Amino acid sequence: MKISALMTSAGINIGICVLLWSLYSVLRKQPAFVRVYFGRRIAEENRLLREAFILERFVPSTGWIVKALQCTEEELLAAAGLDAVAFNRMLVFSIRIFSLAAILCLFGILPVHYFGRKMHRLEISSEQLHMFTVGNVEVQSRWLWVHSIVLYIISGVACFLLYVEYGHIARLRLLHLKRATLNPGQFTVLVRGIPKTANESCSSDVDDFFTKYHASSYLFHQVVYKAGKVQKIMTGAKKACGMSGPSTDTTLDQRCKAVTYPCCLCGASSDSFQLLPTDEVAKNIDKKECAAAFVFFKTRYGALVASEALQTSNPTKWVTDLAPEPDDVYWSNIWLPYKQLWIRRIATVLGSLVFLVLFVVPVAFIQGLSQLDQLQKKLPFLDGLLKKPYMSQIITGYLPSVILLLFLYTVSPIMILFSTMEGPTSHSERKKSACSKVLHFYIWNVFFVSLASGAVINQLNPSSSTKDIAVRLAHVIPEQTTFFITYVLTSGWASLSSELMQLFGLIYNFIIKYVLRMKEDIAFVPTFPYHTEIPKVMLFGLLGFSCSVLAPLILPFLLVYFFLGYVVYRNQLLNVYRMRYDSGGLYWPIVHNTVIFSLVLTQVICFGVFGLKESPVAAGFTIPPIFFILSFHQYCRTRFLPLFKTFPSQDLIDLDREDQRSGRMEHIHHGLRSAYRQFPDNEDIKLEQILTVGNDEDQDEGCSSGERNGEETCKEQEPRRDLCHSTLKGLPVSRLRDSVRSIALLWTAEKRSGDRALIN
Amino acid sequence: MKISALMTSAGINIGICVLLWSLYSVLRKQPAFVRVYFGRRIAEENRLLREAFILERFVPSTGWIVKALQCTEEELLAAAGLDAVAFNRMLVFSIRIFSLAAILCLFGILPVHYFGRKMHRLEISSEQLHMFTVGNVEVQSRWLWVHSIVLYIISGVACFLLYVEYGHIARLRLLHLKRATLNPGQFTVLVRGIPKTANESCSSDVDDFFTKYHASSYLFHQVVYKAGKVQKIMTGAKKACGMSGPSTDTTLDQRCKAVTYPCCLCGASSDSFQLLPTDEVAKNIDKKECAAAFVFFKTRYGALVASEALQTSNPTKWVTDLAPEPDDVYWSNIWLPYKQLWIRRIATVLGSLVFLVLFVVPVAFIQGLSQLDQLQKKLPFLDGLLKKPYMSQIITGYLPSVILLLFLYTVSPIMILFSTMEGPTSHSERKKSACSKVLHFYIWNVFFVSLASGAVINQLNPSSSTKDIAVRLAHVIPEQTTFFITYVLTSGWASLSSELMQLFGLIYNFIIKYVLRMKEDIAFVPTFPYHTEIPKVMLFGLLGFSCSVLAPLILPFLLVYFFLGYVVYRNQLLNVYRMRYDSGGLYWPIVHNTVIFSLVLTQVICFGVFGLKESPVAAGFTIPPIFFILSFHQYCRTRFLPLFKTFPSQDLIDLDREDQRSGRMEHIHHGLRSAYRQFPDNEDIKLEQILTVGNDEDQDEGCSSGERNGEETCKEQEPRRDLCHSTLKGLPVSRLRDSVRSIALLWTAEKRSGDRALIN
Repeated sequence: MKISALMTSAGINIGICVLLWSLYSVLRKQPAFVRVYFGRRIAEENRLLREAFILERFVPSTGWIVKALQCTEEELLAAAGLDAVAFNRMLVFSIRIFSLAAILCLFGILPVHYFGRKMHRLEISSEQLHMFTVGNVEVQSRWLWVHSIVLYIISGVACFLLYVEYGHIARLRLLHLKRATLNPGQFTVLVRGIPKTANESCSSDVDDFFTKYHASSYLFHQVVYKAGKVQKIMTGAKKACGMSGPSTDTTLDQRCKAVTYPCCLCGASSDSFQLLPTDEVAKNIDKKECAAAFVFFKTRYGALVASEALQTSNPTKWVTDLAPEPDDVYWSNIWLPYKQLWIRRIATVLGSLVFLVLFVVPVAFIQGLSQLDQLQKKLPFLDGLLKKPYMSQIITGYLPSVILLLFLYTVSPIMILFSTMEGPTSHSERKKSACSKVLHFYIWNVFFVSLASGAVINQLNPSSSTKDIAVRLAHVIPEQTTFFITYVLTSGWASLSSELMQLFGLIYNFIIKYVLRMKEDIAFVPTFPYHTEIPKVMLFGLLGFSCSVLAPLILPFLLVYFFLGYVVYRNQLLNVYRMRYDSGGLYWPIVHNTVIFSLVLTQVICFGVFGLKESPVAAGFTIPPIFFILSFHQYCRTRFLPLFKTFPSQDLIDLDREDQRSGRMEHIHHGLRSAYRQFPDNEDIKLEQILTVGNDEDQDEGCSSGERNGEETCKEQEPRRDLCHSTLKGLPVSRLRDSVRSIALLWTAEKRSGDRALIN
Repeated sequence: MKISALMTSAGINIGICVLLWSLYSVLRKQPAFVRVYFGRRIAEENRLLREAFILERFVPSTGWIVKALQCTEEELLAAAGLDAVAFNRMLVFSIRIFSLAAILCLFGILPVHYFGRKMHRLEISSEQLHMFTVGNVEVQSRWLWVHSIVLYIISGVACFLLYVEYGHIARLRLLHLKRATLNPGQFTVLVRGIPKTANESCSSDVDDFFTKYHASSYLFHQVVYKAGKVQKIMTGAKKACGMSGPSTDTTLDQRCKAVTYPCCLCGASSDSFQLLPTDEVAKNIDKKECAAAFVFFKTRYGALVASEALQTSNPTKWVTDLAPEPDDVYWSNIWLPYKQLWIRRIATVLGSLVFLVLFVVPVAFIQGLSQLDQLQKKLPFLDGLLKKPYMSQIITGYLPSVILLLFLYTVSPIMILFSTMEGPTSHSERKKSACSKVLHFYIWNVFFVSLASGAVINQLNPSSSTKDIAVRLAHVIPEQTTFFITYVLTSGWASLSSELMQLFGLIYNFIIKYVLRMKEDIAFVPTFPYHTEIPKVMLFGLLGFSCSVLAPLILPFLLVYFFLGYVVYRNQLLNVYRMRYDSGGLYWPIVHNTVIFSLVLTQVICFGVFGLKESPVAAGFTIPPIFFILSFHQYCRTRFLPLFKTFPSQDLIDLDREDQRSGRMEHIHHGLRSAYRQFPDNEDIKLEQILTVGNDEDQDEGCSSGERNGEETCKEQEPRRDLCHSTLKGLPVSRLRDSVRSIALLWTAEKRSGDRALIN
């Protein structure tokens, strides 16, 4: 590829970026799109924004960039959680290390490459990009020591920065633990694999077990029911009430918060369905339905101890883990039988592998496009098309990475589907698992297959023999850089801009508002897609490290990407996405491992390239850093990793004691009772609504205990109820009654188990 | 290789076996060698054996075989521990699965191979061994379905048997836990990485920490001192006293037990060195020397909880692990700073890797020998030698595996050296780590490098091209079988016989007794070398699985090996080796993983071979078992592995409660005080002896508290003391005084810390 083709690609992308960024700076000021661009702030901060026509609204501005840059880490932590901070640190780390790498490589290595071979020089713009890579250095060149030194500096500084960041995140994690004093997850253990016993109900089994073996710290428990039956009924009920779903006003001035927590706990007093159940039936259901339980402990340390111990001699029974935070619980997985999980895990791994392999087809196709001359030879009928002036530049410079980008959009939904099937019990666990899957996918399919398919296409020449393959592989890596640079331009720059624009959100908003004319669901604010963004950034990191020394021309483009990313992601985290759950910085070990992998891979690639340049000294010099990096990794594993797997008991005990001394413990224990609710708030309403259909006389009690959300929420609820009523009345009465009866039975069973726990 | 060459090799080995076995059955009845062949029984059971000349003693007999076979698992468990039972189950598993494999392969697959190609047949003895391998099956043969079915049956049955055995060992492990009520290790936590504080002594640091954070279960603690100084003094003292070391009588009738526990605890009353220390000096030493501590807990569960928790926010400080049993503690490693361990681990891994790679040289050389025709071509000057009648048969059939065997003798000492450097805190951990190292070594260097070097030698032909390599690899595997069969004969059969004969023991015994005319050290009875024997047996298992279908002729030889091994190892475990420590069946997961690896590798190899036979159906049929085996492995990991990593808290709590109810707990707590002794018994004596040199007036108190070992031990001690005295008197007095002073300081420091712990 020529420099001019690269410039074409860069030009297109810069144009797109400028367009989208200006558009964003205008659109964000339009009240119509405020829900798209300020979802988090509306949902969490109850911002007021008045509609008024001001010209300023239509002039592109840069104030938001300043705001995004000015925001401190403290503010980010408060607004978007520890995961956001970890993500931010990842960008900071990338900017730091690649700034250094860019300076060293552009001023140190690029001249060595360009003047590496004595030859006739063209104008800069018609030079092949190849001229700027290590491919242009002569065999047995004496200048390879420059490469070695730069490699040493980059590896060393990268390790140092990694160490600092790891320590920083670990410290923040501990602070996070100490601050989040009211996180019920710290007091709670999720028990799965509760064995069936013949004579007693599951709830009392749980009770017996924990009073027997964890008497000193056990508080009470709450059974999780198999979602099978209940879920079916709920779904039926939901469908019936479906049309009343998003029940909010459009005026921006209203108190939005109330909608996020609609009148949830004003459940009808339990008397309303005491008429229904008989004891025997309830017991039967109890026995059948119980799948897991949340067990609450008096202290954080008690919960930690119970969660870490192997409970019985059968490791698949009474499996205990620290419970996720209430908002983080992934209810539709929590009732999965623990015994199934291992097979689910295997199935998921298999599925991901198959997907990974099948994806090679489009990637190889794309690589074919980027190697134009090869393609021309193979498919001579394309000659006419390819000989047109700008056509070949567009095809080699822009098309391949756009196609790859489109294909890659299918990856993260599929991977998150796989991760869901795997059976994680929390949203954050699911996202983290998807994150590693997508990361593996990117590294394999974008990086390795791109390299390999370049090599394969080269190899299709008839004059192939064993010895040549090795020589060619060394060619491939610098050659593929041209593709990687265009990939940075499209997938990096352009996708950042589309992230900023929230194209999907805009379109969705537009359709909902103007096509379907539905009310906007203000409660629906997406969470940050760590599982797509972290792998993306890490992939660019990998590209940066592995190409830095061999083809330094990629570095300025990457650096721009990281700078843009820093601004965009901070802005998005502060304004658009909502933090519903937080893994507590668990993404950092993934980031750390990937950087270590990239560093080692870089050394290995350089070893190969230097070897083929017949410079054994330079090749030999790449081996010590590998051992150094791996040792450093091992050190970080011993020094920091345990902190990301469990909590230090010293801190937990100190926290417990402080709470006990200050008398806050009582309050916390009280809060635990209502912390976890299997059938979340809106569904509770529906449950209640269904029940009121069964017992019409109780209707008025509906709002009796609605203090939590203030008066206006209760008022708001009224029209919904009427709607629901009328919808439900259309259903056959017999089916409705059945549903009501089953739910009521479950309800009382749960209540009774709670009572028993209290007595004990 | 021809059948006749194989028969030569088999003949030589059978001859050696018969000779050694008969010799053993005679030698074992000679009183002179009773210490070699009945070390365990003498050390543990105090056997009486009278010297009398009976003719029967010189007639070979088979009674010992019957005895070894009759011994039940219970007896084995009692005599040699759970590790021995796990080892035994490994042999039983091998016998079962390879009996089945032998039947299926010899009657099902061997005919398919022999009649696989229509050709002129020679007499059986002149047939090439190659005739009986899959190499003789025609390309696109329709008979490969037989192979597939046999593979399926073997894999399925192997998994089933593995499951049964894993469950069995796990059950035994729990039983073992429950029975070993007086194991102090269950109550003890080993703390490393104790941080230095400015103002207090280390001992009180430990005390403060555990009374603060584990107050409910903390009992007391015992500081471990850095061995540096003390060890040096001890070594000096030992050298001085060295000649008096093994102090026993030769008559067999004496009570041997007393010697194993020489008058150890009759330490001079502590008054004897209260004159020496000043408080400041003691404190200084205390601060400098403390490296780790044994912390004792009131209950087993308390110790487990403390050992599993991450203590502080710095995971390299206050590192807690369940302590090994007192006899299992590897004292010379326990004082290693915890912070060093990660770098030691890396260094060890590097060292093992280098050793692994360097070992390729001798293995490749050996493979050269076994491929006679190739060698003849390369080294024509050997022609004359190789054309002699039996010479070539011996060279191909016998020599290679003998040389390999000799080289392999260096492996286990080197690996155990590496494992020691790694810094394990217990003997059993060290042996287990060496076991995996040796296993990796065997699998890599004996199995893979043998295969690869066979392939390399073949490849030296000038007519090499890319495509041929693949075809050749399929040839290599069945071809190398001939080498593997001879390896089974030499390394398997013959080394079993030498194990039975205890050649090293015999020679050592002979030299000690008749050349050096020293007294035998009856207390020195070796422990079973699991780290060499398990890898050996597992390697044969791997050979068996991977060759079973492709070259079934190896199976009868293997089966004989496993039968012999079953008899020999049981006999050795019962009579020769002593159980000083026991890992509690932790070797089984290694065995399990290796078998799983072997099964998967078998399928992969068959996939390759069937593919080259151009039978895509048969090749395709090898893929599903791989997934089945891996899923099974994953299931076993969830179902059984946690039991081998920790103990179920339910069982521990039940045990604790039972002990508390029966009042045994008091007794156990009392026992804990003297359970762990950094300076073991004999050294205590020397310490005391040195001290008595320093304070001559205290000499008489030496035996004051020697009740534990009865009177005669005290008497025995007298001559030793005199000897020691006279030796010590030769040393410069100033150096002696210094040594004495330092030891006394340490001694009091330790005593004071114990007292403080008592008060708290």
